[in-house]
Amino acid sequence: MLRRLLTLTERFTTADTALAHCDLMCGVYDPAQARIEAESVHKIAQKYQDSDDPVFRDRAILIKEERAELVKHHLSVLWTDYFKPPHVEEFPHLHDLFWRAIKQAGDAKKTMDPAAGEKLLSMIDEIDEIFQKTKQS
Amino acid sequence: MLRRLLTLTERFTTADTALAHCDLMCGVYDPAQARIEAESVHKIAQKYQDSDDPVFRDRAILIKEERAELVKHHLSVLWTDYFKPPHVEEFPHLHDLFWRAIKQAGDAKKTMDPAAGEKLLSMIDEIDEIFQKTKQS
Amino acid sequence: MLRRLLTLTERFTTADTALAHCDLMCGVYDPAQARIEAESVHKIAQKYQDSDDPVFRDRAILIKEERAELVKHHLSVLWTDYFKPPHVEEFPHLHDLFWRAIKQAGDAKKTMDPAAGEKLLSMIDEIDEIFQKTKQS
Amino acid sequence: MLRRLLTLTERFTTADTALAHCDLMCGVYDPAQARIEAESVHKIAQKYQDSDDPVFRDRAILIKEERAELVKHHLSVLWTDYFKPPHVEEFPHLHDLFWRAIKQAGDAKKTMDPAAGEKLLSMIDEIDEIFQKTKQS
Amino acid sequence: MLRRLLTLTERFTTADTALAHCDLMCGVYDPAQARIEAESVHKIAQKYQDSDDPVFRDRAILIKEERAELVKHHLSVLWTDYFKPPHVEEFPHLHDLFWRAIKQAGDAKKTMDPAAGEKLLSMIDEIDEIFQKTKQS
Amino acid sequence: MLRRLLTLTERFTTADTALAHCDLMCGVYDPAQARIEAESVHKIAQKYQDSDDPVFRDRAILIKEERAELVKHHLSVLWTDYFKPPHVEEFPHLHDLFWRAIKQAGDAKKTMDPAAGEKLLSMIDEIDEIFQKTKQS
Repeated sequence: MLRRLLTLTERFTTADTALAHCDLMCGVYDPAQARIEAESVHKIAQKYQDSDDPVFRDRAILIKEERAELVKHHLSVLWTDYFKPPHVEEFPHLHDLFWRAIKQAGDAKKTMDPAAGEKLLSMIDEIDEIFQKTKQS
Repeated sequence: MLRRLLTLTERFTTADTALAHCDLMCGVYDPAQARIEAESVHKIAQKYQDSDDPVFRDRAILIKEERAELVKHHLSVLWTDYFKPPHVEEFPHLHDLFWRAIKQAGDAKKTMDPAAGEKLLSMIDEIDEIFQKTKQS
Repeated sequence: MLRRLLTLTERFTTADTALAHCDLMCGVYDPAQARIEAESVHKIAQKYQDSDDPVFRDRAILIKEERAELVKHHLSVLWTDYFKPPHVEEFPHLHDLFWRAIKQAGDAKKTMDPAAGEKLLSMIDEIDEIFQKTKQS
Repeated sequence: MLRRLLTLTERFTTADTALAHCDLMCGVYDPAQARIEAESVHKIAQKYQDSDDPVFRDRAILIKEERAELVKHHLSVLWTDYFKPPHVEEFPHLHDLFWRAIKQAGDAKKTMDPAAGEKLLSMIDEIDEIFQKTKQS
Repeated sequence: MLRRLLTLTERFTTADTALAHCDLMCGVYDPAQARIEAESVHKIAQKYQDSDDPVFRDRAILIKEERAELVKHHLSVLWTDYFKPPHVEEFPHLHDLFWRAIKQAGDAKKTMDPAAGEKLLSMIDEIDEIFQKTKQS
Repeated sequence: MLRRLLTLTERFTTADTALAHCDLMCGVYDPAQARIEAESVHKIAQKYQDSDDPVFRDRAILIKEERAELVKHHLSVLWTDYFKPPHVEEFPHLHDLFWRAIKQAGDAKKTMDPAAGEKLLSMIDEIDEIFQKTKQS
């Protein structure tokens, strides 16, 4: 256990671990970017259900499509730019969590059921929790 | 004074005031979107100053350009989609504040001096303060 | 009055006032960019009204969305990149005019009524008039 | 000769000839879109020559790249969406003119010599001349 | 005939003929990029016909729009970046073929008939055939 | 072993497993999209090394940035849209392979060493191999 912690520490202190959300090394990451778009995905589906205006409903479909695409993008950036090998070692389900969350963003495109957006939001919360833990360490 | 408050209240309760960050009416807005990109703008300029690798510096210039463009976009959305006439009446310098903030994002493209990003961040803080006040009302 | 003109002149002649539609300082601006897209917004709504083909109507909704977004972008660039403090001093309603025009582009997304596009076009004409005056000075 | 004119007229009056800059049939086209971006390309190269600030010069290279790309896009839309078979019959060098103009936009990306932008502008003028003739007919 | 071949060879061996899909000179071109998107266009129209879910059908319309736009882009890049004057001399119908293919991508936006995508695919095959011949030479 | 095959078959035949590169269900996927952009990334770095023209080198940096971003996008789409739970069960290192490949695309942005692009290409080959196996099954 101690050995594992040492290995982790060691890896974190190597010069080359920092990447960034802009692929430079700006070091600025925030799951809020994905969450804000996911909240929009969720709300759009709700508004769609409450409306019977065909133009509004059409626009809801196309705008939700774009917002969900942004969720995918922001999650993908977090996954491959922020998280490093030691994180994956510490949180072995990280890959699977991101995979299912990005898939869920795709599923939220396919339906106007607000439940899809809700499920997406709870997955982003799960990711955020891990993110906060890695920030503290 | 009371009259003005009444007028404001009245306007806020009319059905048609809600627009949204996605031009539907999802109602999801958050100055965090602009701030995260502005933090990146700021950090990139710092990293540029600390580096003498010409490829890194070139990339810093081009990536800062994109990040600052996103700041402009997010600020513009807040200004024209979230804020409504009663807000402008309550905060008469709102237009000018946004104008200068978006211009500042343009200025932050033009220089590698981190001070430009810092100034941009403080302007976004000012906008955020107003935003939070309008949220409570 | 003379003093004000002198102040304006003074400001215009300072080296640092020039920004540009490309955030460099290319100095190329033209309200025609916004107007061409707004004409498209207007025509699309008309064609929508004249058609009863559901696929055509769906496409009209989504294409108008994109065109109106481009109007917003081009107006925002004019407002923050072309116009400078002395302009705002000379045309004190400039901020408000842009704010309402960009909001109108958002409104033109929300409806298939060609009147929304017409109103947008007349606001762009108003902006163009001011633009032409500042060009002559 | 008369026969050819009749054939042209006939083709123009068929219902199906109208396409549009938005691929709907909004019917709004204007070579000004390409020209404004090409003017920017030209000016950027001039400003680059006049500057010895390495950051400015770097930004000039990347912004010119984007502007020239927009020229390519606007020209391509004109070529395939506005122009119809009868136009090509009437102006047999139309394809070659567009091909060389779009190639020239690519060449204007490759060099900081303002002459490349100038040549691009003169080709767009040539296209505009044909465009205006087809508008009158 | 021999003279013409010599002229062609001569031109091909001049240093300055290479352009690229990225406007640098990376030299990487592949009609597969256009074909993959065109296959998507075709399949989407088929799936649309097989579905009676209004949300699915709406999404099919908007996603096909994007895919067809990518076909246009990839074809335009091939036409103006890969092909050089000697190719046009050797294949005199090249301009017309690209013009009709890009127009066909526009037509495939306008209809949910899978036949439009099929026709587009066969035109891309024709382009590919010429492309392969020029690769061998 | 037989049991595992049965489980896999069962899962594949459920209605809900198909997603697509366009998030509809067009079913068109091809690692060629990522590979073509990665080849470009690789070639650009080579050309950069062979050139001493500062404008060319600047453009190489910025164009490589865009191409590598497209690699990331195409890989992300393959990972979350094409691959399904049974694939992950069959190829347990799939997540890690994609993670490292997308990270490698980020690394290929950071350096002008053609080796980074070469490594990226070999990772895409590895993904393609798995992709082809899943196609046959």
